[in-house]
This record gives sequence, C-alpha cells and structure tokens, in this order.
Amino acid sequence: MLSHSTFGNLFRVTTWGESHGEALGAVVDGCPAGLSLSEELIQQYLDRRKPGQNRYTTARSESDQVQILSGVFEGRTTGTPVSLIVKNTDQRSRDYSQIAEVYRPGHADFTFDRKYGFRDYRGGGRSSGRETIGRVAAGAVASLILQELGIRLTAYTRSIGPVGIDSFDREEIFRNPLYMPDRAASEKAQEYLQECISQQDSAGGVIECLVTGLPSGIGDPVFGKLDAALSAAVMSIGGVKAVEIGDGTAVSQTTGSQNNDPFVAAEQGIIKGSNHAGGILGGMSDGSTVIVRAHVKPTPSIGRIQKTVSSSGQETDLSIRGRHDPVIVPRAVVVVEAMAAITITDLLFSNMSARMDRIKSFYK
Amino acid sequence: MLSHSTFGNLFRVTTWGESHGEALGAVVDGCPAGLSLSEELIQQYLDRRKPGQNRYTTARSESDQVQILSGVFEGRTTGTPVSLIVKNTDQRSRDYSQIAEVYRPGHADFTFDRKYGFRDYRGGGRSSGRETIGRVAAGAVASLILQELGIRLTAYTRSIGPVGIDSFDREEIFRNPLYMPDRAASEKAQEYLQECISQQDSAGGVIECLVTGLPSGIGDPVFGKLDAALSAAVMSIGGVKAVEIGDGTAVSQTTGSQNNDPFVAAEQGIIKGSNHAGGILGGMSDGSTVIVRAHVKPTPSIGRIQKTVSSSGQETDLSIRGRHDPVIVPRAVVVVEAMAAITITDLLFSNMSARMDRIKSFYK
Amino acid sequence: MLSHSTFGNLFRVTTWGESHGEALGAVVDGCPAGLSLSEELIQQYLDRRKPGQNRYTTARSESDQVQILSGVFEGRTTGTPVSLIVKNTDQRSRDYSQIAEVYRPGHADFTFDRKYGFRDYRGGGRSSGRETIGRVAAGAVASLILQELGIRLTAYTRSIGPVGIDSFDREEIFRNPLYMPDRAASEKAQEYLQECISQQDSAGGVIECLVTGLPSGIGDPVFGKLDAALSAAVMSIGGVKAVEIGDGTAVSQTTGSQNNDPFVAAEQGIIKGSNHAGGILGGMSDGSTVIVRAHVKPTPSIGRIQKTVSSSGQETDLSIRGRHDPVIVPRAVVVVEAMAAITITDLLFSNMSARMDRIKSFYK
Amino acid sequence: MLSHSTFGNLFRVTTWGESHGEALGAVVDGCPAGLSLSEELIQQYLDRRKPGQNRYTTARSESDQVQILSGVFEGRTTGTPVSLIVKNTDQRSRDYSQIAEVYRPGHADFTFDRKYGFRDYRGGGRSSGRETIGRVAAGAVASLILQELGIRLTAYTRSIGPVGIDSFDREEIFRNPLYMPDRAASEKAQEYLQECISQQDSAGGVIECLVTGLPSGIGDPVFGKLDAALSAAVMSIGGVKAVEIGDGTAVSQTTGSQNNDPFVAAEQGIIKGSNHAGGILGGMSDGSTVIVRAHVKPTPSIGRIQKTVSSSGQETDLSIRGRHDPVIVPRAVVVVEAMAAITITDLLFSNMSARMDRIKSFYK
Repeated sequence: MLSHSTFGNLFRVTTWGESHGEALGAVVDGCPAGLSLSEELIQQYLDRRKPGQNRYTTARSESDQVQILSGVFEGRTTGTPVSLIVKNTDQRSRDYSQIAEVYRPGHADFTFDRKYGFRDYRGGGRSSGRETIGRVAAGAVASLILQELGIRLTAYTRSIGPVGIDSFDREEIFRNPLYMPDRAASEKAQEYLQECISQQDSAGGVIECLVTGLPSGIGDPVFGKLDAALSAAVMSIGGVKAVEIGDGTAVSQTTGSQNNDPFVAAEQGIIKGSNHAGGILGGMSDGSTVIVRAHVKPTPSIGRIQKTVSSSGQETDLSIRGRHDPVIVPRAVVVVEAMAAITITDLLFSNMSARMDRIKSFYK
Repeated sequence: MLSHSTFGNLFRVTTWGESHGEALGAVVDGCPAGLSLSEELIQQYLDRRKPGQNRYTTARSESDQVQILSGVFEGRTTGTPVSLIVKNTDQRSRDYSQIAEVYRPGHADFTFDRKYGFRDYRGGGRSSGRETIGRVAAGAVASLILQELGIRLTAYTRSIGPVGIDSFDREEIFRNPLYMPDRAASEKAQEYLQECISQQDSAGGVIECLVTGLPSGIGDPVFGKLDAALSAAVMSIGGVKAVEIGDGTAVSQTTGSQNNDPFVAAEQGIIKGSNHAGGILGGMSDGSTVIVRAHVKPTPSIGRIQKTVSSSGQETDLSIRGRHDPVIVPRAVVVVEAMAAITITDLLFSNMSARMDRIKSFYK
Repeated sequence: MLSHSTFGNLFRVTTWGESHGEALGAVVDGCPAGLSLSEELIQQYLDRRKPGQNRYTTARSESDQVQILSGVFEGRTTGTPVSLIVKNTDQRSRDYSQIAEVYRPGHADFTFDRKYGFRDYRGGGRSSGRETIGRVAAGAVASLILQELGIRLTAYTRSIGPVGIDSFDREEIFRNPLYMPDRAASEKAQEYLQECISQQDSAGGVIECLVTGLPSGIGDPVFGKLDAALSAAVMSIGGVKAVEIGDGTAVSQTTGSQNNDPFVAAEQGIIKGSNHAGGILGGMSDGSTVIVRAHVKPTPSIGRIQKTVSSSGQETDLSIRGRHDPVIVPRAVVVVEAMAAITITDLLFSNMSARMDRIKSFYK
Repeated sequence: MLSHSTFGNLFRVTTWGESHGEALGAVVDGCPAGLSLSEELIQQYLDRRKPGQNRYTTARSESDQVQILSGVFEGRTTGTPVSLIVKNTDQRSRDYSQIAEVYRPGHADFTFDRKYGFRDYRGGGRSSGRETIGRVAAGAVASLILQELGIRLTAYTRSIGPVGIDSFDREEIFRNPLYMPDRAASEKAQEYLQECISQQDSAGGVIECLVTGLPSGIGDPVFGKLDAALSAAVMSIGGVKAVEIGDGTAVSQTTGSQNNDPFVAAEQGIIKGSNHAGGILGGMSDGSTVIVRAHVKPTPSIGRIQKTVSSSGQETDLSIRGRHDPVIVPRAVVVVEAMAAITITDLLFSNMSARMDRIKSFYK
C-alpha cells in the first residue's frame, strides 16, 4: 500500500541513502511550478534536525549542507523533479565489528538480516536517524508551498520522559534546546536527561504538531482520511510507537456528550465550539486546528550493558560505545513537522478534483 | 498517498456503497488463484459486525448476506477480481429532514458539505458505519489467505469507557456480547453501558488486535513500515482517534534499558525476551506477536440535547432520534481485524521480491 | 506499474467480472461530486458495444442493462465511488468441454493456465470481450465529465481488413453498422466480411479516436506522457496489437522538415499549421486534435480447422463452434473511446496541481 | 495512472534532472537485495547511449560517468534504494536567447510553457534527450536482474528512414555504428543520413526489442497486460510515435486463420508453431520471444529554416544552430531496451503472488 521509499500520490517524495554511504537525498516529484526555492530556505529546516546544537544531542560535526540538483531554474521550481542531496562528510573509518556481528536490542539489525539476508551494518545503514534528512529536505519544500496558501505548521516537544509542558509559548520553541514551548518544563527535562546520561540510559517523549489555516474538506471519507494519512506519515518515522489525533487515547474514556464538538454560528461562518476531534471529522479537515501527536521511544543505543545475541546465535553482553543522543525527540520535532507538511500538501492537491463545479471553473 | 476508496498495493481492496443506497460491496483485486472461497466463509466474518446480536448494538434487522459475483470458479479463486456485494434491505422510507438540514456534532455532515458541496444525508451516506461491510468482507478473504500461511489474527475489546480487562481468555471473546476476553470486565462494562443508555449518552473503548505466526522481515524500512501501514489501516476506520503499537504511548515515559527487548538464543532460533516493541523493529516484523491497539471515540449520535448549527447557519438544539449503538466498539472489533489482515496480506506479497536468491528460486 | 484491474490515478476505474459469472461491473472512484448521472446516460454508451445490432456481430440477445448501485444521489454524483453493474442474463448451461480441455489459438487459455494453474473456461472467463462492459460503463462517466469541459471524443472504424475509409462524414458513423464514417467503404467492408464468414474465417481492422477541445499542457514530460498513458489504455484492450499517435508508424520514414508542425500566430493565439504530431508534443497536449489509432487483430475464434494442443499435451484439430463475430472492430470502437476518455479525465485532474499560481487561486 | 517521474510498481524507477542542471539521475527502489552491482556494470549500458561514438551522433564530449550513491554495500545491493547520479560536465555558458524566446517546431517548448507557465529553456531542460540517462542507468540494474533469471533482451535498429534490415546478425549489432544487425543495410542507412545532413534535415527510424527466456504467464489479464505496460514504457520515450507488438499494424489486414499461432506439442512442452502474437496472449507472456517495436520520429532540431512563432506571438523564421544528431534512433536503442527491462522486472515481481500454492511454498 505504501511504497518502500516513496510517500505521497500527487506530491511524491522518494528518499534514499544510508548513514555511511556517499550521500543521502530526496527526489520531490509533483512539486508545482513557480515556487520560490533555494538551498538557504531548505537549509533552515535541515538545521533544526542537526546534532551538536546542545549537549542533549550528539556532538558529531555533521554539516549536512543541502544541494539542489534539479527542478529549479532562476530561483523558481519548474514543475519537474526537485532532486535534493546532502553529502555524508563524516564517514570516518571506524571499527564496526561490534555492530556487524551482534543484534542491538531495539534496533533494526535483526529484522534487516531476516528480510534481506545481510545488511549494511555501518551506523544502522538505511535505518539510521540520518534517513530523515531526505524527509526534512522534502518537508521544507512542502512547508514552503503551504506557507503560500496560508497554512502554518508548528511542531514542538510536549514531553520528555515524565516531564510534560504546563504552558505554551510559541516563541520559546525556537529558543529552546529541547524545542519545548515551556521554559520551566524544559529545564526540568534537561535535569531528567542529565540523570539518564549518568545512568548510561536514554529517554523517550512526545511530539505534537499543530496545523492552522487548513481549509475544511481536505482528506477523503474512507481509506484516504486525513488522519489515516497523517498516522502513516508519522508512524513511518523511526522510534514512533503511537499516534494520536486531537484528544487521542483519551476519547475511549469519555462520553459522546463530552467528546462531541458543538457547531457554532460565528461571524466568519460555522465553526466548532471545542476541538476534541483535533480538526478532523469523518477523515476530512473541519476548519479547526489539526492536532497530531507522536509518542517516541527512548533511544535504543545505550551504554548500559544489555543481553543480546550475535548473528551466529551466541548470547552475549553488549554495551554500545560512542556518541548517542540520550533522547531523539528534539531532533525528531522537525521530522514530524516535515511528514505532516508532505501529507497535507498531497491531500490538498488531490482535493482539487473533488467537485465538478470547481473543475469547470479551473478549466474554463 | 492513500487512495480514496482503494487500500493496498498488491492485495487491493476497493469498497463502495452508502448506508441507504441499493447495496454496498468490495472488489478484491490481486487475490491469488487457488484459494478456497465461499459465501459461507465470508459470512462468518460479516456476522461478527452485525447489529442486533445483543442489546448494546442496534436492533435493526440487517441481514447483510454477502454474494460473490466474480472471481471464484468451482469453489476456488481464479486470480481475477473477487466482487462482493451486500444488498441494503432495510431502506425504509424515513423522514431525514432533521439530519438533512442540521450538522450533527461528531459526524461528517459538515465536512462532507464543505468538500463536495452537498451530500447524501440518508443515514450518514458513505460515512455510515455500514461502509465497513466492504472492509470486513474483503478482510475475510485476507484472513483466509493468512490462515493458509499459518498466520492468525485475534481482535477483541480491551476496554469500554473506564472498564478494562484484567484477564485474557481467548475462548471468552466469541461467547461474549462485547467481544471481551474477560467475563467479569464484560459484566462491569455492560453495567456502564446501561448507565450511558439511561443518560441518553454513549461510550468509547479500546480494541486490540494480535497477530501470531507472522514471519520476520515483513514490512519495509522507511515509508512502507509495517507499523505505518497498520496505522493507516486502523486510523482509516471511522471513530478511531489513536493507534498504538506494542507498548504504544507508554514508551515515551520509559527508559531505553526498560524498553529495549533483549534477544535470546532459543531452541527455535533467535527470539526476543520481551515484546515492548509489539513485534515490529525498524518497520519490519521481528517474529514476536504483532500488537496493535485502536482507541475508539464514543458514538456521536446521542439522544441528549446538543448545540449545533443548521446548514443555513442557524443555531439550533438537536436530539438525535432513532436506534443507535451506545458504543461502536464491539461491532468494530472485526473491522480492526479485517484491516489488519488486509494490510499484512499486502505486505507479505510485496516482500516476495525482497531478495535476489529467493526470486531465483521462485523462477527456476 | 499498472494495476491488474484498476486504471487511473485520480479518476480510477476498477473493473470486475467474467463472461459467465453472475454479473460484470466497474467501480469509478474519484468521480467529482455534482455531475449529472443516470443509468440512461450510461446505457447509451453500452448499447454501442452490444452485439446483435447487425449481422456482423453475434446474434446473442444480451440485454446488458446497467444499474447504478452507489455514488449518485438525487441525480448527481456525490464524490463517493460510483458502482456500476450489468447482470449476465444469458448464461445458458452449455457444453464447454471442448474449450475446457483444448488451448484455442490466439486466445488466453494457455497463458491463463500457466499463470494461475487453472481457469474459468466458460466463454473465455475474464479474457472474454464481455470484460469491456465495465470499461465502457466507466468510460461513459468520463465522457460526461469531458463533455462538461467542452472536450469531445469521436471514435470510428478506419479500416476493416484491406478496406479503408476514403472520406470522413461524422454523421455517418452512428448510422453505420460498422461505425465507419464513409458509407461506400462500409459497403465494401461488409462484402469483405461476408467473404470471411463464408470462409469460416475472421478479419481485423483499425480504430481511430479523435479528441477535440482538450486544453494544451495536459500530460507530463517523462513517464506520465499523454501518449504513454493513451498507449497503455488502448493496448490494454484485448486484440489490440499496435498503437499510433498522429502520423504514427509513418514518422519513421519522413524527415524532420516534413514531420515538424510549424507554429502559427492565429487570432485565437498560437496554433500549429499541421498536425503530424497528433496533438501531443513532449508528452503534453498542444491544443490540436489528439489522434490515436488502434490496430485490432482478427477474431481468434474461427470455424476453420486449426491445429492445437490439449491441456494434457495431445495435439488435436479444433473447429470453434458457436456464434462469433467475424470482426470485433465495430464493437471495440466505443471501448477505445471509453479508454481514451478515462485516460484524459485522469490527466486533466492530475494537471490541476501543476502550477503554484493556479493552486493559490483555487484555494484563495 | 502513470506517475510524472516514477515508473513501476514493485521495481520502481524515479528519474530526475535537466540537460543543463548540475546532474541527472535515477533512484531505483524495490531492487532486491543480493544483486552484484557496480558502477562498471551500469556504465556499459550508459556508454551505448553516449554521443560522439561516430559521425551520426553529436560530437559533444559527454563523459556521463555514473556514480552509485546508495543501496550497494560490499558489491551487492542491500534492498534499499539505489541512487544513481551522472554529473553534467559540459554545461558551457552559451547563448540560449534563440531558444528561450522561440517555440521550436516538434519540441516541447510550447507545451512546457502552457503547462507550467515558464520553462528551463537551456537545451530542452527536462525534455532533453539527456533525460534518458536515468532510464538507462536504472535499466542496467533491471537487465542485471533479468540476466540472473536467464532472461535476455536484444534491441537494435530495424530501419533508418526508408532503409530497413534484410538480414539479422546479432553480433553485428554491437560492432555497428547504427546498432543495425545487417551491415549492408547499415551502409545504405549511413548514405541516407549523409544526404540528410547535407540537406540540413534529419531522419527517423524503427527500433525493435526481443526478449527471450521469459517464463509464460507474466503480465495480467486486464489493465496490467504485459503489452500495455510495454507500450506505456516505450511510448514514454521522447520521439516515439507508435508501438507494435509482434506483427503489430499488419494484423489488421490478415485473417484469423493467418494470424492465429497454432500450439504444438514439443519435447520441452507446449510451444507455439509461429509467433505473430509477439510472445503475448491475453496480456500474458506465452513463452515465445516477446517482440516490441518503436517508431521514432526524425530529430526535430534541424538546420533548415522553419516557420514558427515566438513566445510573445510573433511569427519568425528559425534555423537551429549547433550540434544535433541527424537521427536519434541509434542512441535510443539502449533506451528502448532499458524501458523493456524495467517493465518486465516489475511484472515478474508482481507475478510472484498470483498463485496460492506458490505463496505457500515461498513462506513455508
């Protein structure tokens, strides 16, 4: 149903590349002609997933400079595929024998071997977090399209381990090393992470993404529901184990009279008086803020000794050496935003042929 | 990315039909030749979503008899599309003026009008729960394929409102009016539902689906992850607002050392010592039980008076008359199972070309 | 790339059904809301492929009445899938032992057995000409959409065996038993067919389809070329062995100076001074008439004795009994038109997101 | 139906790049793990489409060295996307004002402007013949897969202008500047091309591709017919205006008794006594050689003065300066072979789930 490495139908993103290959990249096909696009605009998004910004992300000096190889002429997209590439500059020759022969718990080592018969064991290969570079670069293109249409995405860290936000200050998100919109919570979360580091352990967390300005009626009533598409998009990010829309898991414990959002006649037209539904009714956007949440597992690479098995079937103890983020949540915030942007752009495009009257206006 | 009414890539299900049209159905394309298939085998699945089985589901006498119109010859599938149809027998002429003019909270009335300009207002049209008939009929075909491969799906009600299961008795599921594997919990849940009914209100709940016998390596590492596909499948069911895999939302509060599943050398080969991951690592099945959970909102149709707005923009009070399930969870259990079966069948098929050595064996 | 039984991306047609099953049909997904649609409008197209209209098509009394099962409310499409069904009324119990055990030359009997291990041998099963019923019913929907946009398709018989048209009278097409736009040629072709019948043999022919009123810029520059899509559409019709666009095979013998169409400044804007290209440049429509031609092989079912082999490997003589069209071309004319209509509708829809300025106008 | 820049379903090729951008390339997704792959193996295919090999192709010194950026580890494919790139080394700054403002007859300049509102006018942009680099690189991967399965493709020039081959010597193809399997015909064709050059004109021709060793049963009975897929593949190549399978256009003038291929009981099993059908019956391979032919138009860029119109609507005379092939046929031979290889690989993969018994053997 979902292609291996391509996401989307009309706005289609194909990513490629491994953590220790020559380069990683994405091809954005179906990008409309006439969009202002430059490497600088895309780089701003990529910089948000860069490590080494603070001590809670790894210190590797990944420069991750994006290059546009096609699809842009004189500063504007031409309608042909936009090929984006980021070179792997830090491929130092390293000893991978530990990873090559042992299945790291929580990683894809074992399942890769089972599926393909062998694997590129250097740094996780295709299952490395670096795979998200292509997603973020492509998501930047989608975000620029959405900006032109007055649609705005805001993703942030909602919690890290047991520490959740209590307040919401949009400006704080981008000043904050953990991308939390609540400075006090961020400080507590940093203490918690420090504790994890000292324990050679790691933490998970929750990312939330808000979409405002989306017209109503985007998404389709059955399999192409906006929430179904967003779930696939977000769950396809490594480490995500749950996706919620609006009130999410909480709905199962409420009653209909609590959970239904009343409609209200407002000046700007019909709106909803509350937003338990997270901006989606029957799979289609309802004009309220779309709310999607991703629950991210703790980084599986930890220094603590773990029991595991080698590829030859020998039980062994494993302590993963090297630099590893104690939490991947802050770096994954922009990835969730990117995947949401790609999904929404695609559904906006396919919605254009939903009504005969609008098709006639378009082609008259 | 996801088609409006088609799900799947190699094993493709297209559903059609509205609650008050002539009929509903599904076309299953890509069904392999040689599978034993009959209307009786499919009917068993459809009967699990039938209403009127007990007092917590509506009393309408929907017979919902499936008919196979194509793709089966002398009791076996031929490899050509299997067309399945269920006639709508209970289309009594009724007064729909209340629904036609007023946007029911929690329903798709408003978003349908926004997307398409008008809608078939009879009983929810395409957004009715009856839309799932096609999914279940097609899911039965998928389940029969999986059975032949030794793969078994078990879906059940995990909680209704605040009442969750405390024990698991597989046999109890099919004896139980709420499809709960815990009789005591089921009795408490029935009391809770009785209370909802007396309040003219409704309840939500949680459905869990387990998949055993799935070989490792099914699913793809990036966008085609097994968990991403399952999320889309399950979130595309009306009323589902959250999807979890394995420990789901709980992972965000654990640490890596708690959440990682150790590998163990067992007699039958390498297995995992625990299953926080829910049977999926890096988007591919790991040989453990696949665990997926759907959080379902309370039935939006309630007798209680709700504030809403008419399509002409007038605020009004609405009390929804007629027979409505106080909870959709028990009837949706088989729908979750069906969507999981369709997803897994599709990914099993696309996995067949993952390795050159296996392709060579196949075609030698 | 092309699905088994689904054609199209945004305007998607899924067909199902065998010649001797219960029924045949099509599901049209992605049909825009608000199109006037009735069984009568679709029936007009189906009647054009009906046999028994004249003595050059079989005399079976197939009524082939279409029924709309979903997607239409109060005479207009709702945006949800349009399910179309035609019942097989003439499934007389017949002796199929001849066909069941022997591979008919020119038919799909052998390849079906090789692919699927067995087959529904009654009347050709899924490879019967009756499979085109679903295409024509769906093509009728596409044609009605195109009509609203001022786009008109005209398909006709260009030649039968060695007899080609010398003149073009559009009105004659629909008066003519062979759908030829040249009465004199039609009479000669009928004589030729009479000769084929007396020889217990069959004839092939050429079908041409013209599309006028198509805006320029429809189709995509690389794999999604309008001509590539039309070729797939037309070559997917049983019996078609060659597809030409514009001057087609003749281009290989001309020179660039002869074949290039000059551009001309006309009152209505830039047009082409000739149309060797058949209305397509670089895969996109150029505003001229789109011209596509299908070369159809002679009906493989003939009374003449043929050498063949039984499924058990015995060589045998075969004389196919029963009523068979001596030529399928006249009945296939509307099938070519239907497939072209489906293709063009789909590409018109996907073209709507080609330009940022138009997307902004659409969503402002 | 067909994506803009992606071809294939399970074996998926996405190409990108313009003639005068930084680079061109292809991403091959769905390539099975364990295939031996190197830049050298791919380069052999690319070298066949290189210009400057003889005086009938342009003298530009395009080096066109391919680089593998991902998906290969220790000489074998890993199952993840294979990203292939070829840098544009000859992007000399040139005066494009002539092309920028004037619509070249027979080119996509006009349709690009109509579709996208503007275009990259340097050397044809995305519609340049250089676009085929990605196809050939990806086709090399497909060909290597097919080789492992004992399937062999042979493409060659069948005619140039009026000069066709009279004999077939497979070895001659690769010794021959025009890739013709008949040296005498090649010499005559070279004389004809010399004449075209002296007239500042250009020539077309016919390319034929043979596929041997393909198992029977590949392709699907309705829309996914092998011939339909091949037609789309070949017609999507710039300059192709007709596609034929087997006897192609000739079938319309034969009779059934002439055109039907009899089945024969041979030692190796059931075979056909002739091959008018070109190896395909009912859309599925029948075990005979698959034969596909592409009719290619004369190079539209000619030195001769042509009438045309500028983008501002002024009529003007145009003589296209610079180096241009007088015929594109020899360079397109490997492109036809590449597209056929990609198509067949894709259909071989999707055929793997056609039968329940084979699926069971695969997963047991």
